[in-house]
Amino acid sequence: MAADAIFPVTEFQTRCAALQDGMAKAGLSALLLTTPADLFYVTGFLTRFFESPTRPWFVVVPQSGDPIAVIPSIGTALMAQSWVADIRTWDAPAPGHDGVGLLADTLCEVVPDAGQIGLPMGRESHLRMPLGDFEDLKTRVGTRRLSPDAGIMAQARAIKSPAEVARIRASCEIAGRAFARVPQIAGDGVPVSDVFRGFQGLLLQEGADWVSYLAGGAGPGGYGDVISPASDAPLVAGDVLMLDTGAVRSGYFCDFDRNFSVGPPEAPVAEAHRALVGATDHALNQMRPGLRACDVHQMMATHLEAAGQTVLGGRLGHGLGIHLTEGLSFLPWDDAVLEAGMVLTLEPGVEVSPGRILVHEENLVLHGDGAELLSPRAPEEMVQI
Amino acid sequence: MAADAIFPVTEFQTRCAALQDGMAKAGLSALLLTTPADLFYVTGFLTRFFESPTRPWFVVVPQSGDPIAVIPSIGTALMAQSWVADIRTWDAPAPGHDGVGLLADTLCEVVPDAGQIGLPMGRESHLRMPLGDFEDLKTRVGTRRLSPDAGIMAQARAIKSPAEVARIRASCEIAGRAFARVPQIAGDGVPVSDVFRGFQGLLLQEGADWVSYLAGGAGPGGYGDVISPASDAPLVAGDVLMLDTGAVRSGYFCDFDRNFSVGPPEAPVAEAHRALVGATDHALNQMRPGLRACDVHQMMATHLEAAGQTVLGGRLGHGLGIHLTEGLSFLPWDDAVLEAGMVLTLEPGVEVSPGRILVHEENLVLHGDGAELLSPRAPEEMVQI
Repeated sequence: MAADAIFPVTEFQTRCAALQDGMAKAGLSALLLTTPADLFYVTGFLTRFFESPTRPWFVVVPQSGDPIAVIPSIGTALMAQSWVADIRTWDAPAPGHDGVGLLADTLCEVVPDAGQIGLPMGRESHLRMPLGDFEDLKTRVGTRRLSPDAGIMAQARAIKSPAEVARIRASCEIAGRAFARVPQIAGDGVPVSDVFRGFQGLLLQEGADWVSYLAGGAGPGGYGDVISPASDAPLVAGDVLMLDTGAVRSGYFCDFDRNFSVGPPEAPVAEAHRALVGATDHALNQMRPGLRACDVHQMMATHLEAAGQTVLGGRLGHGLGIHLTEGLSFLPWDDAVLEAGMVLTLEPGVEVSPGRILVHEENLVLHGDGAELLSPRAPEEMVQI
Repeated sequence: MAADAIFPVTEFQTRCAALQDGMAKAGLSALLLTTPADLFYVTGFLTRFFESPTRPWFVVVPQSGDPIAVIPSIGTALMAQSWVADIRTWDAPAPGHDGVGLLADTLCEVVPDAGQIGLPMGRESHLRMPLGDFEDLKTRVGTRRLSPDAGIMAQARAIKSPAEVARIRASCEIAGRAFARVPQIAGDGVPVSDVFRGFQGLLLQEGADWVSYLAGGAGPGGYGDVISPASDAPLVAGDVLMLDTGAVRSGYFCDFDRNFSVGPPEAPVAEAHRALVGATDHALNQMRPGLRACDVHQMMATHLEAAGQTVLGGRLGHGLGIHLTEGLSFLPWDDAVLEAGMVLTLEPGVEVSPGRILVHEENLVLHGDGAELLSPRAPEEMVQI
């Protein structure tokens, strides 16, 4: 990993102390973590090897003391570079319930009889180990109970430290520079799949460690959805091209998009784009800690409606960080309260004509006195290619 | 997605028929699938949007009839391009247990009272939905039971159709062309992190849709592990550089590596490399359906020991396909039987000196009469850069 991916040990100590505070309040004797993002958050262990689903990986955060890594031996050398001193390994894959015995022993050591072990079980979480092994683990820990973590992990990860904000800022700057070079790789006649390949190449040239996410769309007067991979169809004059990327630097994502017009945009498209940039500015200027996620949704929706636009039904932004999307959603039902230190996306979208949409996205960090853009602000007028 | 990612409908019908045969034998009334790989296998639905952990996605394969997609509405347009006709959507993220009500209704519709719903719960599997929502689902399906799938999904995915082999072959060819160009981007003085960025760029230029995996190592006389991301340290004369990639084309991985020497390799390194290539050839020539995974491990281990090498303790290869690694492991304890249609990696590794290893990897498909290489065979002598 890039050397600058390693935070000072104090960063991890602070994170663990906050988790342990939450555990004390929730009556948990330990946290059991299984996903790449949660492991990275607590230990700094960063590898793309999680792409292989074969081996489970575990970190146990006890109520007091430092975290314990319970991992396949193939990860020993890399984990030894982290701040984690207690590294327990087994040779995986192993027959039977892979690593469960070692994990159960570790949990029984740090959690008293009848103690509770918290796991992330709420929104956006999953358990990265086979369900069959989880059932075996439940048996092996005896009187100890595997319980929800009361949202402790999600809450901790939602508020970014200055060091984390710096990482996300770096990813945003990389993507900003790559977006500025899109006219070099895209234009009339170029297949969209080649644009996607070329844009990923630009992101790497500009400093991304890897490109975990690229989606987008292209079509006359807008596109049909925002999650599709590229088609081989060539761009043609009048198309709107949207590229939405989650490039990763030092383990942290950016997540924003840009819209381009192949030749001059039609009036409704240009207007929609102006309205989207305007709605983003409107929210940016008003966001403060203490507001709720639904308030931000309303700010953007109202602004777009006033501009005569048809607002898309989905969420109009969300948190980001170690994941492409994490934390709150700008939706009418989400009453999560904004806090300083949150890194968020504003992602307003409109339907320009039936089945043709336009979505704009920026990234920001929320300070005590308001929002600061992390992505370079898009121009009101769509860039022509 | 690239247009050639779409298989003919008959491919999916054949897959589902095989799954349904297995379900009948195992007494399952439906399969419930939640992971990107399993969804792609059954429906052809391919998106990088799963990088966002926010929304759960489900596919239900009933005991008879076509699969049913139960998905967030943001995926409607893309799923509609697949062969799946029954697409049920909800607006996610939603308050409460996201999508669980719709999923439970669907399961109750296709599974009789007291019927069993199979989920992958064994090795390499995980459940891609929050555990809290899974508990809610258990309650909502009433007398129906959520049970292990008896390995049906893993077994189906392990045997590749000719169309799948063609996809993996294409990914291997892309990586082969990129590896041939490594001397253009790597050499004395180049930071390893720049080599990693440059190599990902080459993979994209050569036709990868995206690069889900790149790991490697560099060091004098070998490297310390094979799962680390890149350091910023520059290559120096005498270093061995290893790049191991899982590039993706049309949803299918390759997974092989190449070793390069910065300047001429030292004799023990050159010897180890020859022994590794020799061990690979040795296994390639002998592999047949009916042998066991442990037999292949022994072939390579014996060959390496006869060449005076110290064999690494981990597995010496595995299956691949929609995942970077899937299926059997070439390990002394794995008695899985090789079958025609399996796509496998041979990945022998040795310790050249304490803490310094060398790993070589090739990809192959097993036919009735033996193995066919899918990766372009590496030369015995390490390529110098």
